[in-house]
Amino acid sequence: MSTINDVAKAAGVSTATVSRVINRSPSVLPETIARVEQAMMQLGYQTKDNRRLSINQGGDTIGLILSNFNSPFFGLLTQGVEKVARKYGRKLIVASGQYDPELEEEALNYLLNKGCRNIVMHSKAMSDDQLIRVASKLPGFVIVNRYVPGMEEQCVWLENRKGTYLATKHLLDHGHRNIAYISCELEIDDKAERFFGYQKALEEAGISVNPDWVEEVPFGEHGGALAATNLLNKGLPVTALVAYNDFFAAAAIQVFADHGISVPDRLSVVGFDDVLPQCYFTPRLTTVRSPIESMAIHAARLCVEGFESGVSTRFQPLLVRRDSVAQAVST
Amino acid sequence: MSTINDVAKAAGVSTATVSRVINRSPSVLPETIARVEQAMMQLGYQTKDNRRLSINQGGDTIGLILSNFNSPFFGLLTQGVEKVARKYGRKLIVASGQYDPELEEEALNYLLNKGCRNIVMHSKAMSDDQLIRVASKLPGFVIVNRYVPGMEEQCVWLENRKGTYLATKHLLDHGHRNIAYISCELEIDDKAERFFGYQKALEEAGISVNPDWVEEVPFGEHGGALAATNLLNKGLPVTALVAYNDFFAAAAIQVFADHGISVPDRLSVVGFDDVLPQCYFTPRLTTVRSPIESMAIHAARLCVEGFESGVSTRFQPLLVRRDSVAQAVST
Repeated sequence: MSTINDVAKAAGVSTATVSRVINRSPSVLPETIARVEQAMMQLGYQTKDNRRLSINQGGDTIGLILSNFNSPFFGLLTQGVEKVARKYGRKLIVASGQYDPELEEEALNYLLNKGCRNIVMHSKAMSDDQLIRVASKLPGFVIVNRYVPGMEEQCVWLENRKGTYLATKHLLDHGHRNIAYISCELEIDDKAERFFGYQKALEEAGISVNPDWVEEVPFGEHGGALAATNLLNKGLPVTALVAYNDFFAAAAIQVFADHGISVPDRLSVVGFDDVLPQCYFTPRLTTVRSPIESMAIHAARLCVEGFESGVSTRFQPLLVRRDSVAQAVST
Repeated sequence: MSTINDVAKAAGVSTATVSRVINRSPSVLPETIARVEQAMMQLGYQTKDNRRLSINQGGDTIGLILSNFNSPFFGLLTQGVEKVARKYGRKLIVASGQYDPELEEEALNYLLNKGCRNIVMHSKAMSDDQLIRVASKLPGFVIVNRYVPGMEEQCVWLENRKGTYLATKHLLDHGHRNIAYISCELEIDDKAERFFGYQKALEEAGISVNPDWVEEVPFGEHGGALAATNLLNKGLPVTALVAYNDFFAAAAIQVFADHGISVPDRLSVVGFDDVLPQCYFTPRLTTVRSPIESMAIHAARLCVEGFESGVSTRFQPLLVRRDSVAQAVST
């Protein structure tokens, strides 16, 4: 258990200054508040009455931590947070964590040092414990697109497993039995959750997952193409495919088409996220909608208004039926 | 001509403090420097020896002003600037200008107030004069994707008209004579430049632009669909199409396909930007490549390293030949 002396030492200030920060004295410089609060968080220091630091200190910004900058998913997420920032007359300070625990923590510390006290974070690499420690001290800290047990009030998340369950069920309902799955290599919670939904739907239909049906590939444009190539190489009687995201689905569809396997006539495909403008696709992609912009808006509101605002934190995925799924034909 | 007194008054400081800022005294707080510099800029105050404020004050950030957050174009732009920021151990402060002159200026003032002295800006709405005034005082201010005469050293831009010239020429070389053009409604310099390139190529081939061939539509997913619908409504013998950007091209291709006009058999199409992953497209889109990530990297380097670094500022568009253009068939 750390003491006020530890905090003072770590922050390079006197214990009197730490007291002033805890008691929200107006005489302390914002930089000093930031330094002291960061030291408290890092040391896990608890004030006697377990007092939270006040929301909306550090005033005119919202901090946003993304995993990367270049994807429509994060574009929509940023757009959502910015809508709220604009409403509150705030600007965004943005940093990226690149799915790396150290970079995520660095980004967070950077925003804290900038005096940012309202932070929306897309964290996939820092541990639950680390995030809970920050959340317990910083009511304006909200995790978006991840469920962290122990800080439910400061999370906005999607029921991922339900999404792939719906996708797989939709294919089963169309008579498909040999359903492949494209997963990602990155060990993030969504990976396990989405796979679980796929597995559950199959099991309910009396089908055990065939490991040969499952491909794990890197994120990015080439992942889906690689997965499709691998599935083709194995020459399995697969008639349908659930993809971890729309990118994998889109790239796979092209590779199958190049090999004379057209969608949906010979292969039915369901994506995930619904972040790609449908104007590109022939056939238009049946997918599971993740309402990421809406989730980001709710996360930003939660971050600025506090959890008393009563915004929804748990989001349901929705199956969006378009043209990439057809009835299975017995071969 | 404004005086040191005007600046002091506007910034709410003494003339002695303004002097200290001009002489780069280390005793002035960063917030005060920011306030004084901003007052200087707004008043157009010139120091006696026309001394520029120093590069790399305001230290650990790069400011980035985008037009919006949700597009692959701005995703790539942000990614480029972040690569340089990372190299220099800096973080990004990001704001958006939404193609609106007041919002652009507000975003700029916000970053200046944050003490940001290295700023990469995607400005389409503020006037040349406004930008030149900022640039003359702030060597770390760089405009990306726009040529502003009078501040060439602090701009990184693309030869836009050459891009549409190449696109149109490519279609003419394939025997097309009736070539439509999808333009945007927004009155930005790129619009005039890109249209000029289209017009020039046609005129060199002895063809005058038929106003019926040209559609001006709003940015966004629906713009291209609207343009295609309008062109179909007019029932013209158009065999080819140049689009202001890839989004317009992609959406138009879908609408034409829905009406039985397949690309490239019955219609050849060339896009612009090359920011869409090709894995989506059938046929893969022939387009003009705008190297926006590379331009952003150069802009950020120019912004941090200064124009002595000798980075390229003028970029050439390149025609990327894929599968959406075919020889014209006489009907």
